[in-house]
Amino acid sequence: MHNLLTLTTDFGLQDYYVSAMKGVILQNAPNARLVDISHQIPAQDIMAGSWVLKNSAMLFPAGTVHLVVVDPGVGTTRKPVALQIDDQLFVGPDNGIFSLLTEQYDFEAVELTNKKYWRADVSNTFHGRDVFAPVAAHLLNGAELTDLGPSLDDLETYRWAVPIADDDGIEGWVIHIDAFGNLITNISESLIDDMIANNSIKLYVGNTILDNITDTFGSVSDGEPVAYIGSAGMLEIAVNKGDAQKMLGIKKGAQISLVLQKED
Amino acid sequence: MHNLLTLTTDFGLQDYYVSAMKGVILQNAPNARLVDISHQIPAQDIMAGSWVLKNSAMLFPAGTVHLVVVDPGVGTTRKPVALQIDDQLFVGPDNGIFSLLTEQYDFEAVELTNKKYWRADVSNTFHGRDVFAPVAAHLLNGAELTDLGPSLDDLETYRWAVPIADDDGIEGWVIHIDAFGNLITNISESLIDDMIANNSIKLYVGNTILDNITDTFGSVSDGEPVAYIGSAGMLEIAVNKGDAQKMLGIKKGAQISLVLQKED
Amino acid sequence: MHNLLTLTTDFGLQDYYVSAMKGVILQNAPNARLVDISHQIPAQDIMAGSWVLKNSAMLFPAGTVHLVVVDPGVGTTRKPVALQIDDQLFVGPDNGIFSLLTEQYDFEAVELTNKKYWRADVSNTFHGRDVFAPVAAHLLNGAELTDLGPSLDDLETYRWAVPIADDDGIEGWVIHIDAFGNLITNISESLIDDMIANNSIKLYVGNTILDNITDTFGSVSDGEPVAYIGSAGMLEIAVNKGDAQKMLGIKKGAQISLVLQKED
Repeated sequence: MHNLLTLTTDFGLQDYYVSAMKGVILQNAPNARLVDISHQIPAQDIMAGSWVLKNSAMLFPAGTVHLVVVDPGVGTTRKPVALQIDDQLFVGPDNGIFSLLTEQYDFEAVELTNKKYWRADVSNTFHGRDVFAPVAAHLLNGAELTDLGPSLDDLETYRWAVPIADDDGIEGWVIHIDAFGNLITNISESLIDDMIANNSIKLYVGNTILDNITDTFGSVSDGEPVAYIGSAGMLEIAVNKGDAQKMLGIKKGAQISLVLQKED
Repeated sequence: MHNLLTLTTDFGLQDYYVSAMKGVILQNAPNARLVDISHQIPAQDIMAGSWVLKNSAMLFPAGTVHLVVVDPGVGTTRKPVALQIDDQLFVGPDNGIFSLLTEQYDFEAVELTNKKYWRADVSNTFHGRDVFAPVAAHLLNGAELTDLGPSLDDLETYRWAVPIADDDGIEGWVIHIDAFGNLITNISESLIDDMIANNSIKLYVGNTILDNITDTFGSVSDGEPVAYIGSAGMLEIAVNKGDAQKMLGIKKGAQISLVLQKED
Repeated sequence: MHNLLTLTTDFGLQDYYVSAMKGVILQNAPNARLVDISHQIPAQDIMAGSWVLKNSAMLFPAGTVHLVVVDPGVGTTRKPVALQIDDQLFVGPDNGIFSLLTEQYDFEAVELTNKKYWRADVSNTFHGRDVFAPVAAHLLNGAELTDLGPSLDDLETYRWAVPIADDDGIEGWVIHIDAFGNLITNISESLIDDMIANNSIKLYVGNTILDNITDTFGSVSDGEPVAYIGSAGMLEIAVNKGDAQKMLGIKKGAQISLVLQKED
């Protein structure tokens, strides 16, 4: 068995929160092989966490356990859950963090209620350490989902604003800006393929207008803006060897308009 | 054997310092399973490092080796040391970084003097790579504390400012602010339990006055301040789904006053 | 086999880029033992990445595979490559990232052309996930360099500005500033040894003049500036228990002049 267990949190790395979880996991599953996905999810940003999970979790080997703690509602009525999607296992709060996965894949879910798999003393503010970490360790050790608590038919959802498409084109939004300043939109490749066909287009990004969607940054000169389908399958806007966020003055949430140029 | 070795430093991750230590450890102990506790301890902040260690190191499986390098005095007379606390092993500089652990637990310590366990060439400025990393690897490989150098009866201590408690209440301080902006104080749950009994209280946090200590963030509305006992067993002040540091205008070191409301 | 595979990128940890690569590696080599060297290389800063690699990669056990993705030219004509230096293996873009190693060590290199070792679908913007990660996994699994593509005699080079030395002294530059604010120069210990011999010197660092090169920070009082040979074998300037970058007002690229004080 590969014993892989990934961690995704918004805890940052200045505090003891991540290491306390690692200690509890390894105390319960000494052979766990820990893989940090990210501890730099922006604080309490459920969708940013969901975006990172959606684009990486399903790439791991079958049987990997993914521990996810972006949990602004810790200590309230939000449910602790575990789920299986395809051959991957997930543990975390039911607050929408799994929604980009569960809207794409079938899933089986349970509410975590069986305290046998938790730490003896559960704090009100750190379920990552006291509930989710030990449950993830026990899943890695072979516990079944059904051991952990009763089945759940539905999980919380938390959807991206969906782009608006009509005969004139597509209105979308910047849903994420990466560390390079590249602008990731909620306009998918398949939506574009359906809409554009052989029409020419204009793409409005703040004060910048682009005439086409190309293959990669490098198809324009250094310092020039460029639109392309990114590695997550979404329309992205970048500046070749530059920072589009700064150079185009665009923030997360900004509107992106793709307008079809029809022949008269 | 689980072969676990954790790393805690203030090196950040832009430089080669952490990876050079990892290379030396794995060169000497190829089966070491490295676990990053934190490399984001604020530069030269011995107490911040001690706080992270205190709240996570003892959670790891028996036999884990903890390598700790927050070392502003590297190349001076501060001693390199190794110690055992309960079933955990520690290696690092004797500058107070271990004090929150050693004031709570019994320990056995040695000064690192046996150069057989060091790299052949020891720089003056990077004992993390040249002394502490290879010693940690050799401990993992089964070296005994007593192989490494002579026993030490005392280690440097470096204490938190202790809160002042009298008949009127408790004066404490903010000793740490976490990545969410939560304010962690040096007022422990047990001190509060002793003091408050059934009295009502007022808690003064800058310009904010709170009337009680509750269970968790979620017991107040979003955006409201709240006092509770945190996951480290200390009084904390947070803003539900917000950042207390920013919203209450409080910095590390700020005074926190808990005043008993006595009946006349 | 130790199965060690290190990762060095400029991706930061807020995005899915690092975790997608980890997933692909582990999908292809489930027993890979991942070691993060750094994901905080400044965006697109090839030389900063090369500096970190030069000072840590060769410390790892024989057979370690180093995956390096600082790749501003992804999707352009820059070649994907793999190389062997001594007993270490490297995979990444041919853009100079390996030059501080290849100017010091002999190497064997190949261009990655054999798509059998890539993911089935290769994006234009994320060769880290689609080309470099699977190739690194296959190298770990025992693939030979020559399986991956044809030999390359030369790799791109990208050199530090070389210091200028004459009878009067040495003009060098600050090539790196670390997380403590220490200034690392391009003036090597051997160049200094050759030049200085028994002469006394003056070292000009912005508005600060130092009279000698000493052993370590601790040889001056707290808050005082000090010059010494750092752990990478280069002249460094620090402030004891302080931040030289801030306290001396020096930026990356600043000139450092070492002037010999000759007797008349």
